[in-house]
Amino acid sequence: MATKEEVAAFIAAEFPQTKCAVRAVGNAGSTVVHEVGLGELRPGGTVSGPVLMAVADVALYVAILGEIGIVPLTVTTSLSVNFLRKPVAGKSIVGVCKLMKLGKSLAVGEVALYSEGTKEPVAHAVGTYSIPPH
Amino acid sequence: MATKEEVAAFIAAEFPQTKCAVRAVGNAGSTVVHEVGLGELRPGGTVSGPVLMAVADVALYVAILGEIGIVPLTVTTSLSVNFLRKPVAGKSIVGVCKLMKLGKSLAVGEVALYSEGTKEPVAHAVGTYSIPPH
Amino acid sequence: MATKEEVAAFIAAEFPQTKCAVRAVGNAGSTVVHEVGLGELRPGGTVSGPVLMAVADVALYVAILGEIGIVPLTVTTSLSVNFLRKPVAGKSIVGVCKLMKLGKSLAVGEVALYSEGTKEPVAHAVGTYSIPPH
Amino acid sequence: MATKEEVAAFIAAEFPQTKCAVRAVGNAGSTVVHEVGLGELRPGGTVSGPVLMAVADVALYVAILGEIGIVPLTVTTSLSVNFLRKPVAGKSIVGVCKLMKLGKSLAVGEVALYSEGTKEPVAHAVGTYSIPPH
Repeated sequence: MATKEEVAAFIAAEFPQTKCAVRAVGNAGSTVVHEVGLGELRPGGTVSGPVLMAVADVALYVAILGEIGIVPLTVTTSLSVNFLRKPVAGKSIVGVCKLMKLGKSLAVGEVALYSEGTKEPVAHAVGTYSIPPH
Repeated sequence: MATKEEVAAFIAAEFPQTKCAVRAVGNAGSTVVHEVGLGELRPGGTVSGPVLMAVADVALYVAILGEIGIVPLTVTTSLSVNFLRKPVAGKSIVGVCKLMKLGKSLAVGEVALYSEGTKEPVAHAVGTYSIPPH
Repeated sequence: MATKEEVAAFIAAEFPQTKCAVRAVGNAGSTVVHEVGLGELRPGGTVSGPVLMAVADVALYVAILGEIGIVPLTVTTSLSVNFLRKPVAGKSIVGVCKLMKLGKSLAVGEVALYSEGTKEPVAHAVGTYSIPPH
Repeated sequence: MATKEEVAAFIAAEFPQTKCAVRAVGNAGSTVVHEVGLGELRPGGTVSGPVLMAVADVALYVAILGEIGIVPLTVTTSLSVNFLRKPVAGKSIVGVCKLMKLGKSLAVGEVALYSEGTKEPVAHAVGTYSIPPH
């Protein structure tokens, strides 16, 4: 297992380009947050889909590393996202991940994505990760 | 319908942050290409999943606009990606989209994603878009 | 809105071939149960994937009808299932649905599928439904 | 590898309840066909979604067995279906599968589903299978 600090340090070192910050890790889950600037918007003032997908991907990765420790070559094998509501343009995106299965070589989890401070999710993702021998 | 030049100009104006270039549009399909720099890599030298998803998203959007003309508020309602092979670190990602359905208010298409010049896809995506009245 | 009895009567009348029984409806959700006999098993004693998908599909349909009333031409537009664990061969499959979005023309929900009496889901589904004008 | 006759005999012996017949196997693909009777219809005269999903599942299974031989414990790990058009009520459903990846322990493929004799697919599926050591 890895603590929030260990996972956050790993993400910062290995993914310096990500804008995702780790807010919580543990109990087969995670919460990550992504600030939204002009670069994340698309016509209509919506946060772009790929930003939401990136938040979901990081949330899953963080949740898994929180359980198995820092295993960098853990990789996404599938990610499926439904976009539900228009995100609020000026608010951060928060991803809340819950792992549904954590096997030796495969993990499956879901992520609810919110505009910070709102109750109804803007998107919902399900992803699978392949875990290398470790 | 919109030509390759019209779609490319629209993408450049409205999504200045994207690195996707439009290579072909028409016949219910599209080809887009995304250069790969250090910002797109993750541990192990793999192109990050969100970059592949962003290419798939743009390829679908471009293919739809090529058919219906520039309707900016056309938005992704779902995107599902399977990651199949490790992309080649130094090569651009090419997305080849084929629409499977183009209804009045809903479009569905698939995108095969390749490392430029290779034959086997690195990922495969299926996406749905909602088209507003136009 | 429709009560559990109304939805159950509708399902029994219109889908006489289904083995799904409605256990609960309401609060943007549903619980349905499907007995498992020899016809539902596949090599290895596993309940077949299509049976699990059918339970997910019915659970979503029931949850939506519970909210919008009996609108028969409400149809599935997508269904995505992850199979997580081997179901117990002799136990019924229970599907617990929660709607994530219920718009005028589109509903999105998720379904956790269990072998009756067990805690960890055997599968997880996400589906979208198109709702006709009503 | 297994021939069409070997796969068909295996399916008939192990899945006596399926109505899917194997029409072709090989070249990392398959074609299967499913007759449509009253049991497969739902309100509006549409073939039910679970029937289409079952055809997709069998088509994938058949295509994989055609490549790796009869490995019964090969199991579906995910299946994702988009429903595109209303199937023709009186016509068989034909599933045409193409494998996109066939690894040692994981296979990924897509299936286009048609009403027999029509050109536009009624649905499109993507599935992943886990292959046990063999």
